[in-house]
Amino acid sequence: MLEPAARKRLRVVLVAPRNPLNIGAAARAMSNFGFSHLRLVNPYGVAYREARSAVGASDLLAQATEFPSVAEAVADCTLVVGTAGVADRQPQHAVRRLEAGGRLIGQKLQSEPVALLFGSEKFGLRNEDLAYCHWLLRIPTRPEHESMNLGQAVAICLYELVRDSSVARKLPVRPRHARSADLERLTGLMLDALRSSGYLNARTSASTALKTRRLVRRLDLSARDAEILMGMFRQIIWKLSGESS
Amino acid sequence: MLEPAARKRLRVVLVAPRNPLNIGAAARAMSNFGFSHLRLVNPYGVAYREARSAVGASDLLAQATEFPSVAEAVADCTLVVGTAGVADRQPQHAVRRLEAGGRLIGQKLQSEPVALLFGSEKFGLRNEDLAYCHWLLRIPTRPEHESMNLGQAVAICLYELVRDSSVARKLPVRPRHARSADLERLTGLMLDALRSSGYLNARTSASTALKTRRLVRRLDLSARDAEILMGMFRQIIWKLSGESS
Repeated sequence: MLEPAARKRLRVVLVAPRNPLNIGAAARAMSNFGFSHLRLVNPYGVAYREARSAVGASDLLAQATEFPSVAEAVADCTLVVGTAGVADRQPQHAVRRLEAGGRLIGQKLQSEPVALLFGSEKFGLRNEDLAYCHWLLRIPTRPEHESMNLGQAVAICLYELVRDSSVARKLPVRPRHARSADLERLTGLMLDALRSSGYLNARTSASTALKTRRLVRRLDLSARDAEILMGMFRQIIWKLSGESS
Repeated sequence: MLEPAARKRLRVVLVAPRNPLNIGAAARAMSNFGFSHLRLVNPYGVAYREARSAVGASDLLAQATEFPSVAEAVADCTLVVGTAGVADRQPQHAVRRLEAGGRLIGQKLQSEPVALLFGSEKFGLRNEDLAYCHWLLRIPTRPEHESMNLGQAVAICLYELVRDSSVARKLPVRPRHARSADLERLTGLMLDALRSSGYLNARTSASTALKTRRLVRRLDLSARDAEILMGMFRQIIWKLSGESS
């Protein structure tokens, strides 16, 4: 979970991107997750101009900066991380899986600017680009199909940075549960309907009452849903009593 | 961290997708992360046919199945989860953030089929579709720009499912570190070069030796990089000795 000020320290660097849709998708994901600094190294000219219409991210794209080289695009950063598959890995480079690398990037962003590099759609990052990186980041894709779409790779890396592991065990926001008295009123209405419809008989009515009471508790009802069900059964009971008269 | 058998139990359901690039991007991300069951509810006809060329995912797209309704697309699943923003939220539905919801989906996938629903690019999931969902999943985007690209949203949800939190604290694979004896040989060569070049002088040579020894240890060198540096300094020393002779 990265504070907004820390998010502002990240520079997303696209090296030689060719497809305007991918530049736009990267910008959109940045906007979705609250990052703002997009840098482009030697983008294919047409691609850059056509990308400017990305949904909800036109301001971010207008403020993107262009650099003639990786060296210049990462000059102000104290940590430079390249994204690469296992296939691209150079033995000299340490490779961290995103789960582990994201944590390190997040720590660094607390105080210092970090560059996260993505290579071109076709070739990824070249050896010349990787040489500027302190280490490499790997998204845990299958070895049989490792290569990700550029826009999706950017989105996943940014999600990992804003991900809040502390919410993984929190309960969701959900409506107030029905109180036991409400559940008992519902149980009573259900039993009335069952009695009127002939489902209950003298021999089994005690066990059916218990069965129904337990079933209603297992439904894990909200107060609102218990009211809705009671309304339904009241109508059924009313109709059943009319039929039999 | 989801086993391959559990990944096979997930059904990714795209409801009324319109853009072939998004269907293709969803299929590609599924292939990247080892998921295989793609279901399409009322896809825009042209979109579906044009999507068949997604990079590395043509088999998966060929095996995708089409359904006329959400009810039929999720019929075999014991848990149905819809993706939605806070804006789409109905008060009746529990909403879980992806970090928490992903864990529940992963647990269910250990034994039972789960459907994960994504709405159309323009309208998201409609109320009629959401009514089939047990609860909703929210990707933690900014409230100011909540709406994600469809292909990116699919990719992020699947990444969360395969994410392995146990690797977050593991050390990366990296080459063997240099042993102390190697670091000391390197320190000696550096001091030789400094002596030959006139950097050392009688008054400060002891403290410079200590300073250099500490600096070499801070470099955190691999055995291989220590060898490379020693080769460089040997050449420098050789050249310096020639200059002075």
